[in-house]
Amino acid sequence: MTPPAEPADTDAGTSLLAPGWAGSPAASATGEGAYLRALLDAEAALSRAQAALGLVPAEAADAVSAVAADPGAFDTRLLAERARAGGNPVIPLVADLTKAVGERYGPYVHRGATSQDILDTATMLVAARTLDLLLPDLARTERALARLAVEHRDTPMPGRTLTQHAVPTSFGLKAAGWRALVLDARDRITAVRDALPAQLGGAAGTLAAFEAYGATDPVGLPAAYARELGLREPLLPWHTLRTPVADLAGALAFTAGALGKVAVDVLTLSRTEIGEVAEGSGGGSSAMPHKANPVRSTLIAAAARRAPQLAATLYGSLAAEDERPAGAWHAEWEPLRDLLRLTGGGARDAAELTEGLRVRPDVMRAHLGLTHGLIVSERLSAELAPVLGRARAKELLTELAARTYAEDRTLGELLAEVPELRGAELASPTDPARYTGAAGALTDRALERR
Amino acid sequence: MTPPAEPADTDAGTSLLAPGWAGSPAASATGEGAYLRALLDAEAALSRAQAALGLVPAEAADAVSAVAADPGAFDTRLLAERARAGGNPVIPLVADLTKAVGERYGPYVHRGATSQDILDTATMLVAARTLDLLLPDLARTERALARLAVEHRDTPMPGRTLTQHAVPTSFGLKAAGWRALVLDARDRITAVRDALPAQLGGAAGTLAAFEAYGATDPVGLPAAYARELGLREPLLPWHTLRTPVADLAGALAFTAGALGKVAVDVLTLSRTEIGEVAEGSGGGSSAMPHKANPVRSTLIAAAARRAPQLAATLYGSLAAEDERPAGAWHAEWEPLRDLLRLTGGGARDAAELTEGLRVRPDVMRAHLGLTHGLIVSERLSAELAPVLGRARAKELLTELAARTYAEDRTLGELLAEVPELRGAELASPTDPARYTGAAGALTDRALERR
Amino acid sequence: MTPPAEPADTDAGTSLLAPGWAGSPAASATGEGAYLRALLDAEAALSRAQAALGLVPAEAADAVSAVAADPGAFDTRLLAERARAGGNPVIPLVADLTKAVGERYGPYVHRGATSQDILDTATMLVAARTLDLLLPDLARTERALARLAVEHRDTPMPGRTLTQHAVPTSFGLKAAGWRALVLDARDRITAVRDALPAQLGGAAGTLAAFEAYGATDPVGLPAAYARELGLREPLLPWHTLRTPVADLAGALAFTAGALGKVAVDVLTLSRTEIGEVAEGSGGGSSAMPHKANPVRSTLIAAAARRAPQLAATLYGSLAAEDERPAGAWHAEWEPLRDLLRLTGGGARDAAELTEGLRVRPDVMRAHLGLTHGLIVSERLSAELAPVLGRARAKELLTELAARTYAEDRTLGELLAEVPELRGAELASPTDPARYTGAAGALTDRALERR
Amino acid sequence: MTPPAEPADTDAGTSLLAPGWAGSPAASATGEGAYLRALLDAEAALSRAQAALGLVPAEAADAVSAVAADPGAFDTRLLAERARAGGNPVIPLVADLTKAVGERYGPYVHRGATSQDILDTATMLVAARTLDLLLPDLARTERALARLAVEHRDTPMPGRTLTQHAVPTSFGLKAAGWRALVLDARDRITAVRDALPAQLGGAAGTLAAFEAYGATDPVGLPAAYARELGLREPLLPWHTLRTPVADLAGALAFTAGALGKVAVDVLTLSRTEIGEVAEGSGGGSSAMPHKANPVRSTLIAAAARRAPQLAATLYGSLAAEDERPAGAWHAEWEPLRDLLRLTGGGARDAAELTEGLRVRPDVMRAHLGLTHGLIVSERLSAELAPVLGRARAKELLTELAARTYAEDRTLGELLAEVPELRGAELASPTDPARYTGAAGALTDRALERR
Repeated sequence: MTPPAEPADTDAGTSLLAPGWAGSPAASATGEGAYLRALLDAEAALSRAQAALGLVPAEAADAVSAVAADPGAFDTRLLAERARAGGNPVIPLVADLTKAVGERYGPYVHRGATSQDILDTATMLVAARTLDLLLPDLARTERALARLAVEHRDTPMPGRTLTQHAVPTSFGLKAAGWRALVLDARDRITAVRDALPAQLGGAAGTLAAFEAYGATDPVGLPAAYARELGLREPLLPWHTLRTPVADLAGALAFTAGALGKVAVDVLTLSRTEIGEVAEGSGGGSSAMPHKANPVRSTLIAAAARRAPQLAATLYGSLAAEDERPAGAWHAEWEPLRDLLRLTGGGARDAAELTEGLRVRPDVMRAHLGLTHGLIVSERLSAELAPVLGRARAKELLTELAARTYAEDRTLGELLAEVPELRGAELASPTDPARYTGAAGALTDRALERR
Repeated sequence: MTPPAEPADTDAGTSLLAPGWAGSPAASATGEGAYLRALLDAEAALSRAQAALGLVPAEAADAVSAVAADPGAFDTRLLAERARAGGNPVIPLVADLTKAVGERYGPYVHRGATSQDILDTATMLVAARTLDLLLPDLARTERALARLAVEHRDTPMPGRTLTQHAVPTSFGLKAAGWRALVLDARDRITAVRDALPAQLGGAAGTLAAFEAYGATDPVGLPAAYARELGLREPLLPWHTLRTPVADLAGALAFTAGALGKVAVDVLTLSRTEIGEVAEGSGGGSSAMPHKANPVRSTLIAAAARRAPQLAATLYGSLAAEDERPAGAWHAEWEPLRDLLRLTGGGARDAAELTEGLRVRPDVMRAHLGLTHGLIVSERLSAELAPVLGRARAKELLTELAARTYAEDRTLGELLAEVPELRGAELASPTDPARYTGAAGALTDRALERR
Repeated sequence: MTPPAEPADTDAGTSLLAPGWAGSPAASATGEGAYLRALLDAEAALSRAQAALGLVPAEAADAVSAVAADPGAFDTRLLAERARAGGNPVIPLVADLTKAVGERYGPYVHRGATSQDILDTATMLVAARTLDLLLPDLARTERALARLAVEHRDTPMPGRTLTQHAVPTSFGLKAAGWRALVLDARDRITAVRDALPAQLGGAAGTLAAFEAYGATDPVGLPAAYARELGLREPLLPWHTLRTPVADLAGALAFTAGALGKVAVDVLTLSRTEIGEVAEGSGGGSSAMPHKANPVRSTLIAAAARRAPQLAATLYGSLAAEDERPAGAWHAEWEPLRDLLRLTGGGARDAAELTEGLRVRPDVMRAHLGLTHGLIVSERLSAELAPVLGRARAKELLTELAARTYAEDRTLGELLAEVPELRGAELASPTDPARYTGAAGALTDRALERR
Repeated sequence: MTPPAEPADTDAGTSLLAPGWAGSPAASATGEGAYLRALLDAEAALSRAQAALGLVPAEAADAVSAVAADPGAFDTRLLAERARAGGNPVIPLVADLTKAVGERYGPYVHRGATSQDILDTATMLVAARTLDLLLPDLARTERALARLAVEHRDTPMPGRTLTQHAVPTSFGLKAAGWRALVLDARDRITAVRDALPAQLGGAAGTLAAFEAYGATDPVGLPAAYARELGLREPLLPWHTLRTPVADLAGALAFTAGALGKVAVDVLTLSRTEIGEVAEGSGGGSSAMPHKANPVRSTLIAAAARRAPQLAATLYGSLAAEDERPAGAWHAEWEPLRDLLRLTGGGARDAAELTEGLRVRPDVMRAHLGLTHGLIVSERLSAELAPVLGRARAKELLTELAARTYAEDRTLGELLAEVPELRGAELASPTDPARYTGAAGALTDRALERR
């Protein structure tokens, strides 16, 4: 074996083109070194499971496990290039592992398995390890958002639809909504993570080779193998029954999109003209000292733009012909890694973003006045109708709406001059801050969810 | 209101370009008429829910419900064109409905709601109704596959990987695998269907208008509304918290892909040169009487090619800014309908395909001999090693493998001539039909799942 | 033949869920009636081309053409459902057409052709006709943008990057950039439109049947057929060489995205807080009279979100096996129609949007002051360095930048108090309106492109 | 600057999960080192272009160019992680480069430019360099296919539609069709490659900073810059006018799909049961010596499954708001690299695949008999009608078609026994090899294209 240029486990999977995930926990968990380790873990577990069932000598399992415990002895770069010949990295890895284990126990390496058993299992291990790092970042995000929702339960701000002020809402409700999405993401990720199965079927998914090597009940082997790995026992070999991969695709695309919602809202609210929120530490610009770019949101938004199409490729690979397809399986490898990285990086950024978010209630409140009070016209329509009659109320509001902008006065001022309304209590109905409806109650209720 | 050119509820949603879903239950359930009905159902339920809470007179709710019960009185074509002005079909529909309800109760139509409340709710109703028609087709498919798995539990056939014969498997295991995917689809569809929520939040999701119209506890209204509709009460208004749509996207893309796996296998196995299965009634060709095209599989495979990208658009719409986004929401409407149709049509075709599938065990068995017996070389490697020594066994098999093709003889014949193996029992180890490993046991176990 | 429920050619292809294209020229051009007409045109052209080469009697071609000229005699709804059996609509259409042509000349209908010849050709006709309607809308858009660019060549406005004010730009340059994209779209659409080929190959693309029916030089037939249709002669039958469809996908996705750029800019600039532009006639809201939603931009943006994934499905169908694939071809039909509709509807909306766009130079100018003059800090960095020394200039600007916000004063005011700058001309360097660089010159140059 | 762990230019961009491109020319051309070099090339060219216009001292340009010429002095790993803060790798790179250039000329580094100028330009350089390596592989593929088309111009084989034998075709025509797609790809790649522009606009695309630094005609600078780089001068800064990226997306997705067509055909034709072609050196299996997997085709097919969705993300980024978008731009970087790698790797594999393809005319010919002669029923329908009358011919063929399978005899044998056909020349019309229509002529014509 060629001495490796660098220890595999320092491969943090960086990329000049990926500030969204480079350096994140998910980056290390999905790097070349992480995949190598997972592949070796799968081979070691296979030998131990067979030893547990008496199919190989315990010493063989020990020997394989010992060599597999040292990923640094393998050269990912060369393995990657040698993967070309057979179309997957397991073939050269098994050759190197067999050689390293030595003549006596080498023949027990990979015995009875097929490349896909090992690569699929390793992929599930990588997924499990990455999700275990991603979930705490979702939890941090959720906690930061709960705090924001509590703190701003009664902070009124403009509700916006199709880019225009509609009626008031509260920042607490907005934060509670973001949190609800993060909890949805957590639930979906957790469910998928707990279901990640080991893969073991042999050449065509019948476990036949294990029988040939002496197993009396080969169906027991995948169970033992899964136990060794901390993964779920599969009901059937799933070489071309790709439910686990599709479920990962869905949960990860959902999570990237859920975080993307937070990001696009922050991007909007931190525009120079809006400035209702700001990232804790925006990215700077040397030439323009006033700029504080919402970098975390930008990178999360970028991830949300990419994840759906990566998931689409994985869903597309469900239609996998035969007992191992010629292309559909191979098309899964990089997109799944990309999805794990992007979403993991996004979760890290979301935690930082939400923990550091600066909220400006005064700016929010000031913006409630931008439409000269028309932001509460819905309320006035409802409340003036019983007083003035429905037709007259509508006519009046239409007329005053036009005048507010023309005369640069507020709807409240103009209403106070209407003779029919003399003496009416107008302060409350024309105050946008008092037209947030059930925003507080909804926020409370949403916060009860854990 | 313009008299409609045709009764809306006969709109079966056909398309010259969609043999995969035209005429299916899902087609009617997603046609123009079905959406119109659902929109009207949502408006009627809204008025009844408000009546139940005392916000509108019971007579108003009755009046709205009565008019809404007759979709034929509305012209979908004109509504569709009038939807342009405001960008959604609810605005003109509310105008027509208000007019039809009349002067007295018209003002109660749509009161306090926003267009998105109605369109989202209608979409959930359409989804629920379509899934209720799709699930029975999945159930038919599942039953047909269970029958095939039982019947062919011990029907050996070549296992194929990367297009080449690998080792034997059984058709029963293949059918059991297909069935497992269909059950996975059923479970995902069922879970999503049961969670479909009503939508109610008013202009910016605060329920404020309902308060303005007198509701003391507006949070109770969505619950009453959902009950009227048989949908789930939402924890929060989800105008820009699109979990329900994303979940539908995932479950439908999964289902289309799961059925796609069955289809691509049938397409492969029914090739002229393979002919191990055939569709019950293939599509014919006038000029070529011998052709029996696997049409059902073709259309299912086509749906599986499209569904992932449609789902991608829906996942992409999770990143929806503000309280109602300018584009992300509008981009959901047609793709979700398309996904429901495609998958619903695919389920219908899958039921017909699997119920009518003709299986040819004799052809499968004959194909086991195509590799001159090399299809069991894995077994022989395993079993000869203890007899001959590992090195000699490998050398021998490599030599004989080359000779099988060159001399057009089977591996079994050649082995019988090897002096060291004189007297050895070779009939069983060289019989591909006896090298199906745990295929039977795995099939049995998979069939236990209900 | 069943009498049709409605004349096919009034089918404008509306959809309650598609305000973006319903009622547009592209909607009629891609409706059921339009496809039916194109299918019939293809059959008629085929008979005429064969008559021209002496393969069928001229009377037969006349008879086929006469019947095919009346699409109203065919029932698209029934054809759509009957398309199920063979998996495409041509089979039942040929049956109906043959019957309608009558016993004598019926046998000449569709002679020698395969369903795909007709459906692919009809699709190219529909594409050509739709693009011919789309191009004038792009031309209108281009003209409106040229006018805006000229008119606002010197209208300064904030340049925004990552949502923050960066340095000034001009609205003229922005409009010129939009126009450049529209011209790029026009060029791509025009190139693709001019290359749309007829399809003719017979059952497996060899033109063999035409030889069997007597053609001595069957290769001449596609040329004659293409001439009849006004389409390009294909170099080869392209049943599974899908360049024309992929090229359409690319050009249409490009166009949808190019218009999407205009839309997202208008959506941003018309936000309540920004208000630098407004759509000519925004969509209203009954409950909120102040709202003028940017509906045209919203619908264009929605189309831009969907088009890429539709194009992806079409690019995916390039990998089409055999002489006609089982799925890849069928997966093209609806997405291509959808792309044509969406992009055609988007072009209509873009023309209306740009022709009606209201621009507010005063608001733009006012916004240049939002950063207290820091929007020109880049310029000051450059110009003060030679005066004060690089280090001192930087230090000074950093200090003053902090003070502008703290003291709510402009950078210009603060600079005027700096002793070292006493007497320096500061009016110009601190005026954002005078820091638009080459915006004018770039606009002029871009406008030279025709 | 931290000493790098490894020389950047040895980074070949390998990946354990990417046998499709690892080790290919495209891999090195798109690796971390390649991007670093391109970024440095862009910075150096910027300083030289400014020197050429007299904006910076020639010595400064020399100093920058000298440092930039040694990518090994920069640490891509650290740059990647430091890219997080500002969201792109140019910011830390400029810091390192400035420091390395030294106090005197450091201030001239990156002067007047924005990060996007450098990153977009570097991306275009990387694209140009990768396409320059990809085109020769397309040329090799084209030549190999031309050779196959010439050699097998008259090799008959079954034409297959919807997986079933339809009528005969020739392998020459199939190869000529593959070649036509490769030429289409070459033309699209060449056109895009020749149009790749440099990017230069400064902070908001107005070139204003260059004016502030003294340029009298800043519009001349991008031209000088483009000349330095061998890229095209852009008409406008294209920070948010993403035509070049979209065009790359389309051309690369097309190419991946075009090669995918070759791959799926080879996969089908090399199935164990079909065996009409075989890859020159298939991937082996240790346990199954008979297996020769079509690995090259598998990997090309996998690339074709992924490319469309990567292109979709890039088309989606056309809708980029403002003068630099918050997400759409960042979402381009990795997908464009992935597309270049996948397609470049696919081109390498396609060259090897087509150069090594083994064709088995004898197997093809044998398969023409699989339908008992019915593969020519279309011809017999055409030719018997004038002899027997149309009705009788059809009746007869239908009857005999049924008998061929039942009696296991050929259509030719059965026809010879029909009394009405006594003495008729049946050898030719019933010989599938003589029913290839214009396959030869079409092949010849297609080969004329260069």
